[in-house]
Amino acid sequence: MKKMEVYGLETIPIVKEGDNIAKLIIEAAKKENVGIQDNDIIVIAQTIVSRSEGRIVNLKDIEPSPFAKILANETRKDPRLVEVILRESKGIVRMGGHHLIMETRHGFVCANSGVDRSNVPGEETVSLLPLDPDASARKIRDEIRRLTGKEVAVIISDTFGRPLREGAVGVAIGVAGIDPLYDMRGRKDLFGYVLETTLVAIADELASAAELVMGESNEGIPVVVIRGFKYPKGEYSIQKLLRPVEKDLFR
Amino acid sequence: MKKMEVYGLETIPIVKEGDNIAKLIIEAAKKENVGIQDNDIIVIAQTIVSRSEGRIVNLKDIEPSPFAKILANETRKDPRLVEVILRESKGIVRMGGHHLIMETRHGFVCANSGVDRSNVPGEETVSLLPLDPDASARKIRDEIRRLTGKEVAVIISDTFGRPLREGAVGVAIGVAGIDPLYDMRGRKDLFGYVLETTLVAIADELASAAELVMGESNEGIPVVVIRGFKYPKGEYSIQKLLRPVEKDLFR
Repeated sequence: MKKMEVYGLETIPIVKEGDNIAKLIIEAAKKENVGIQDNDIIVIAQTIVSRSEGRIVNLKDIEPSPFAKILANETRKDPRLVEVILRESKGIVRMGGHHLIMETRHGFVCANSGVDRSNVPGEETVSLLPLDPDASARKIRDEIRRLTGKEVAVIISDTFGRPLREGAVGVAIGVAGIDPLYDMRGRKDLFGYVLETTLVAIADELASAAELVMGESNEGIPVVVIRGFKYPKGEYSIQKLLRPVEKDLFR
Repeated sequence: MKKMEVYGLETIPIVKEGDNIAKLIIEAAKKENVGIQDNDIIVIAQTIVSRSEGRIVNLKDIEPSPFAKILANETRKDPRLVEVILRESKGIVRMGGHHLIMETRHGFVCANSGVDRSNVPGEETVSLLPLDPDASARKIRDEIRRLTGKEVAVIISDTFGRPLREGAVGVAIGVAGIDPLYDMRGRKDLFGYVLETTLVAIADELASAAELVMGESNEGIPVVVIRGFKYPKGEYSIQKLLRPVEKDLFR
């Protein structure tokens, strides 16, 4: 029997700007008898990373541009929210109904450039994705190493909708210490047939596994520790998971 | 601390046509001290379901049509394989390079209509998706209930590529006893803000979690038991996860 364990930490306090997330994770993991071990994968919800980095905007401070007002009218959104969405983007990938599917400055394709109203204090505030989620993940991973001596992988996760299938799923938006794309080419299957092309997006699968425990409303569980999954280590960027436009049959 | 456990069963024998998969799962779970408990979610790789149902084709028996030969030439595939792919489909969604992205008879959008060369015995044999994966899942769920008295959910899983992001991920292609789409609308977030629209594709997330333990080459692990995740119960179809063409901004 092969076993993987997924622990949701329930005692992480509400994160404020400037908080040391690594420290909060270590304390909660200790208090909840989970601890931090070598080779753990720590999945962290984007919202708390954004909050700790001050990536919060008050819509009262936003003056919408003429184009933001046009789009707001089309999609029946708050023009100030649309303005923030546009500022976080490289361009619009799809529009339709109430939907604005954007390409973020990082290259993620998602609704509203990842600008989110939930899990942010105040009625008029929204959270933005971290400026550089790989760097955010590395910083937390390095700080966990410094404080505990343990070598872990860190994944920053978010919940994205997707083409073709209904329902959002947990995805990785930043990684440290793990190859997000597991290359199984050249491996053999049960009957000795060599697998042709099997690249598995393990960082997204780990984020999805974590999301089940977090719940979308977070239920106070913004951090998940995954233990028992053997992953390919090393320094990689989440960019490996973003398919270039020219290679995508659906762009 | 909230805990979810993911157990990969390593002693499932190689499945042949007519095998009782429920019985094989129960025996392996017992032998490996995992057991079957009420509310377990049992994720089963499509390949063994297809094999047990005789959904295997020998390419030697296939005469490719003229159109299959044209497509085979375009995509540099075996014309007999392309013939099987066409017979399993409703239509072609995208073509490009070596890729044939098809809509299967069930409505899944995936490469090669899910026709797969790996984990099938014989160099000239391929596996097809189950004819009705929901029915396959229900049959196994019912048989587990009959043999053990336990009430479980069953998910038949496969590994699909997807638009926008690199790498395949585990997805659900059939379900029994679980709502594949978790509706969190009306719930409140950490700060009391009511979540607008959050439908989470939990069946896909569970399939992704399972896939991590299965590994794509299966490594002899075609069945995973997930324990500790509280899911919405009831009778649903995987069709709930398939977005209608007319509502899809990427079709």
